[in-house]
Amino acid sequence: MENPFNDTYFMKKALQEAEMAFEKGEIPVGALIVINNTIIARTHNLTELLHDVTAHAEMQAITSAANFLGGKYLKDCTLYVTLEPCQMCAGALYWSQISKIVYGASDEQRGFVSMGTQLHPKTEVISGILAEEAAELMKRFFAERRK
Amino acid sequence: MENPFNDTYFMKKALQEAEMAFEKGEIPVGALIVINNTIIARTHNLTELLHDVTAHAEMQAITSAANFLGGKYLKDCTLYVTLEPCQMCAGALYWSQISKIVYGASDEQRGFVSMGTQLHPKTEVISGILAEEAAELMKRFFAERRK
Repeated sequence: MENPFNDTYFMKKALQEAEMAFEKGEIPVGALIVINNTIIARTHNLTELLHDVTAHAEMQAITSAANFLGGKYLKDCTLYVTLEPCQMCAGALYWSQISKIVYGASDEQRGFVSMGTQLHPKTEVISGILAEEAAELMKRFFAERRK
Repeated sequence: MENPFNDTYFMKKALQEAEMAFEKGEIPVGALIVINNTIIARTHNLTELLHDVTAHAEMQAITSAANFLGGKYLKDCTLYVTLEPCQMCAGALYWSQISKIVYGASDEQRGFVSMGTQLHPKTEVISGILAEEAAELMKRFFAERRK
């Protein structure tokens, strides 16, 4: 039997978080942190609501997961995030020594890849999971905002 | 008469914050955010106490100052921090569009300069203010921890 807990399964949940951000008028990015197929953090971007540039989905997820685990290192954890992390979030992920990052859509302007932000050598990265869905949500958000 | 509110004046206060971190067993980094010669945020590193890699002094200062100002952009604000910011903190400062960053000691291994993290084009950077005092505090901390 196929394992239902694959990257697509968890990215769908992250997309649901992104949709919740969308409904609040936030740039629609959602994130999850998973350990042993268990979701231990579930967050979405809240920068507008909190007037806080540090309130990206990933940052909240890191804080929340570390709180759950009772330690600051995210060993054996995977972050699922609908958009490629920025410099700040990649920098936080570096400190967390997280085992795996799975992201959806690329952010060629402000993503960590083109910005050259360094991740921890222990961190594996997978990209492009449900990328079209995540990118479509972003496009729809900015199209509505321009109206 | 000389203006008492210069970079050294505020960096001394940031060093006091770094000493408070030291006393708690935290890597001794302190930060301040100042607008019109008024301190609106005063923080120190709390990563150990909070089990949270995102709890660097600068990150807390950004959140706290934005909360005080009621908006996420730190226009006309200056960050004073005893140690050169890392990738994460520089990435957060990028989003904040802060006007000025003044730091003390350089961090050649993990500081944003050698890591190549991009700041906002509006941000002015001054370094080396009370650098020896800040570096000395760090050295003392790591020497005590090795005992």
